[in-house]
Amino acid sequence: MDKILRIDMGAGGGPKFREDPVGDYAGIGGRALTSAIVSKEVPPLCHPLGENNKLVIAPGLLSGTAAAMSGRISMGCKSPLTGGIKEANAGGQASQVLARLGYAAIVLEGKPADGALYKVMINKDGVKIESADEFKGLGNYDLVDKIKAAHGEKVACISIGQAGEMKMSAASIACTDMEMRPTRHAGRGGVGAVMGSKGVKVIVLDDSGMKMRAPKDPDKFKAANKVWVEGLRKHPVTGEGLPAYGTNVLTNVISEAGAYPTKNFMWGSFETCNKISGETQAETEIERGGSATHGCHRGCIIRCSGIYLDKDGAYLTKQPEYETVWAHGGNCCIDDLDAIAQLDRLDDDFGLDTIEMGATIGVAMEAGLAEFGDAEAAINLVKEVGKGTHLGRILGNGAAVTGKVFGVERVPVVKGQAMPAYDPRGIQGIGVTYATSTMGADHTAGYAVATNILGVGGNVDPLKPEGQIELSRNLQIATAAVDSTGMCLFIAFAVLDQPDTFQALIDMINAFYGLSLTADDVTALGKSVLTNERDFNARAGLTAEHDRLPEFFLKEKLPPHNITFQVKDEELDQVFNW
Amino acid sequence: MDKILRIDMGAGGGPKFREDPVGDYAGIGGRALTSAIVSKEVPPLCHPLGENNKLVIAPGLLSGTAAAMSGRISMGCKSPLTGGIKEANAGGQASQVLARLGYAAIVLEGKPADGALYKVMINKDGVKIESADEFKGLGNYDLVDKIKAAHGEKVACISIGQAGEMKMSAASIACTDMEMRPTRHAGRGGVGAVMGSKGVKVIVLDDSGMKMRAPKDPDKFKAANKVWVEGLRKHPVTGEGLPAYGTNVLTNVISEAGAYPTKNFMWGSFETCNKISGETQAETEIERGGSATHGCHRGCIIRCSGIYLDKDGAYLTKQPEYETVWAHGGNCCIDDLDAIAQLDRLDDDFGLDTIEMGATIGVAMEAGLAEFGDAEAAINLVKEVGKGTHLGRILGNGAAVTGKVFGVERVPVVKGQAMPAYDPRGIQGIGVTYATSTMGADHTAGYAVATNILGVGGNVDPLKPEGQIELSRNLQIATAAVDSTGMCLFIAFAVLDQPDTFQALIDMINAFYGLSLTADDVTALGKSVLTNERDFNARAGLTAEHDRLPEFFLKEKLPPHNITFQVKDEELDQVFNW
Repeated sequence: MDKILRIDMGAGGGPKFREDPVGDYAGIGGRALTSAIVSKEVPPLCHPLGENNKLVIAPGLLSGTAAAMSGRISMGCKSPLTGGIKEANAGGQASQVLARLGYAAIVLEGKPADGALYKVMINKDGVKIESADEFKGLGNYDLVDKIKAAHGEKVACISIGQAGEMKMSAASIACTDMEMRPTRHAGRGGVGAVMGSKGVKVIVLDDSGMKMRAPKDPDKFKAANKVWVEGLRKHPVTGEGLPAYGTNVLTNVISEAGAYPTKNFMWGSFETCNKISGETQAETEIERGGSATHGCHRGCIIRCSGIYLDKDGAYLTKQPEYETVWAHGGNCCIDDLDAIAQLDRLDDDFGLDTIEMGATIGVAMEAGLAEFGDAEAAINLVKEVGKGTHLGRILGNGAAVTGKVFGVERVPVVKGQAMPAYDPRGIQGIGVTYATSTMGADHTAGYAVATNILGVGGNVDPLKPEGQIELSRNLQIATAAVDSTGMCLFIAFAVLDQPDTFQALIDMINAFYGLSLTADDVTALGKSVLTNERDFNARAGLTAEHDRLPEFFLKEKLPPHNITFQVKDEELDQVFNW
Repeated sequence: MDKILRIDMGAGGGPKFREDPVGDYAGIGGRALTSAIVSKEVPPLCHPLGENNKLVIAPGLLSGTAAAMSGRISMGCKSPLTGGIKEANAGGQASQVLARLGYAAIVLEGKPADGALYKVMINKDGVKIESADEFKGLGNYDLVDKIKAAHGEKVACISIGQAGEMKMSAASIACTDMEMRPTRHAGRGGVGAVMGSKGVKVIVLDDSGMKMRAPKDPDKFKAANKVWVEGLRKHPVTGEGLPAYGTNVLTNVISEAGAYPTKNFMWGSFETCNKISGETQAETEIERGGSATHGCHRGCIIRCSGIYLDKDGAYLTKQPEYETVWAHGGNCCIDDLDAIAQLDRLDDDFGLDTIEMGATIGVAMEAGLAEFGDAEAAINLVKEVGKGTHLGRILGNGAAVTGKVFGVERVPVVKGQAMPAYDPRGIQGIGVTYATSTMGADHTAGYAVATNILGVGGNVDPLKPEGQIELSRNLQIATAAVDSTGMCLFIAFAVLDQPDTFQALIDMINAFYGLSLTADDVTALGKSVLTNERDFNARAGLTAEHDRLPEFFLKEKLPPHNITFQVKDEELDQVFNW
């Protein structure tokens, strides 16, 4: 990981690439690296779909090593959805493979002629860029099938579906999983649209002949990894809850807590949520011969995913995440797991962020385009997106655009990005993260749900403003650091609660790189990432006034707690005062 | 004009109104008043279509008096198009009539239940608010016909068409002219959507039984008005050019200057512009028995408008303005006057800003929805807006949304509002106004074209950055003041060139109100209006980064001068440093 692959998609005579030494960007990975490159190299007022934006794809610091859980890959750019900086990360195989190929990052630059579409192939012999005209208009599943036929089942793909080709702001970038299915998505902020604007349909990564990345101190590294794995296995969330039921274990929990956004954020509980809960989902998966416990990349030991088969026992999709089940489910008053799984499959195939799409369908339902609860209508709306009809193009550009086009007032977005599956009135800490995150509304940016609801990392009353700023601040700093390691964010449950597990992570990094970092260095890294991102956003015109929730969260009381968002603007402005 | 009519559209049991004394808002009118009320009373982060926005309708200081040219009425609110403060003003009869009814302003507040639609009737006996369900879905022309049938031809209407009812961001508010046709529009920034969100279809104003407003010093006022009229008559622009050919006299001039945005701002001259020039337009109008010289309100002596008949001699529309002819014409490579007149009629009927719509069609053509130059396709696209199809809703929300939905990079907007008929590369002074105006891209906010091209108010080279900041600054200050008087902005040509005409305007205000204002006071007024507006915008999250032209004006050289926009960001930031 000592080189950066830069591909100029706008070069005369077709794309040209070069390999640069990491140089100034040495020693950072994942989000730290994508945000550093974007912040330094992308003009903040450039058009997100224009030649001056860059798409940076970076494995984490520990990706490609034997460290458990190190398979996240970061995608960074100026976001067409928020207008600010964006890092969205995904699991799957790409991160490990790209890291083993020796790249700290791929940077897609420039812009080809309209309509030009390319495949980038990277293996031990180097880089090849070919026309991908034959892939035009393909969904991710069909595309990956074609790649499989050409390159076998051991490669990893980074690709876009129709949504990315059409440069929609809800377009994701798909990464293939261990079964080489395009189920792992860097979902948020329209990163897929930026890849589409660069004319890259798919990046095929083949690490045959490459070795696992070697630590500087193999013994120390191995020992630390052992403590690490033990720590993850012994924590109830990473060792029991997530393996058994996946993220969807939260459906009952959050609805019970009165913070489950239902009917486009009108209510805090969903009456029939048990029909779509993780428990029901796992039961269904097992009953049909699928799987309720499955990893998305080599080296995953939490195995929070699963395989969802349809009623006839045929593969339909990977186990939909809690946020997906919420977005396409409770948020739209839909309590049909099969319909939700179909929507998940459509989103993955078209290359769409499930959170953005579910929120968008909710807004469309509020606009009267379909009835709340009508699963078939929801499926048809998402199909419009894949077809690229006028309606589909509206929806595919997300909740904010859909709200604007149909004159809807209740649109749950911050900085143009849809809120995930936690109502900020019922979980005030996550509201602070939604409001202030550099990314727009994003639960992963500082998952206060852990401490507000799950009792992880302490306890802070979810319904009171007290303590939420500090909680969100600390979580945002920690997350920015974790997102830079290549580690799956779910490690945070164990890391927050178990000091020895946190230490094991630091020990692994130190042993791998021959460093002697401390916890303070990790905090400093997180702060520096956020500082880079805040700086870019300020130069892009985002201000304190953009660090606010939409008006209706301050006006409408959420049942059953009948509470509005209580954290004051002046407090929100303190999140980054450290 | 000593009272403000406030109508709470969201009151329980239907709209309720009250009349307040002007109080703190005494002594200002037009834009000064709308911007003061909006800045003071509207929460800057409220949803523009929500209950907390207000629509303020205010005649100017001299409206309703015998002063020539005093028929402009201002509409102010938080803009759904720009997210910032908005004042859009219109001619027609409404301003004079509302002023004679004694109102300094009407303020529409709150928000009725979805789908509720009202008519507001104001006459000497007071205010009546009735359901207007029977008007639902009517265009402005049909609506006004019904009002005519019910209330006769002497009332004035302020109304919205289908676009306003659908709360589209390009929706205008129509005011009827002397023939009681809905041809005078407060076009910009989506003020019609805000009126639609308030559930007000039409305000009918009847000043029967009311008197002309009486000056404190009638003799001085009369004398000043005489000098005023003489001044306007003797200036070549207001006395000759505008009366003979209307604003469209500019088509040949601006194309010749290489600053006529053609094919969605790709070129600076339009080869066949003579086919749609003011000269050709006037000839056509006269030939068909229409009129090439016509006033839009009682008291207009410039008479820059006209009556455009179709080929069969039937009334089609008022004489389309230069900006309309450009937007629907050269900008889309359309050189067919009849088609442009039809588009003007459709816009007026649906209640749409012609500038925004023309720019939007240009972007749609760039997206491939129609061929540049295809007039029939353009007409069909605008018809979609009236029908409210999905495509129509996209287009009706303006150029920025259309660009976003279709992934177009070249979108000529500032703060979300489309640029008018002058390329900022060919007329750099107007570029400074576009970039920095509180209103989004708006030529009327500081018409540097006068000095860059027409030699009015001095001469500043249009192709050089030097002098443009000071020019735009002074014009923006002067315009903010003029917009507060109720005066038509076209008086500025004479006022800028003839000190005695400027003095006559001040003398009229002084004689009318018993004041002793000086030119410095006028400047102070303009500055205070801009300060209010800038303050609102800052609190709404608009920053220096929003005072910029889109990237492509800095990258693409405009033929024939082959020049980019030359004014530096740091200079733009000096516009409001006075």
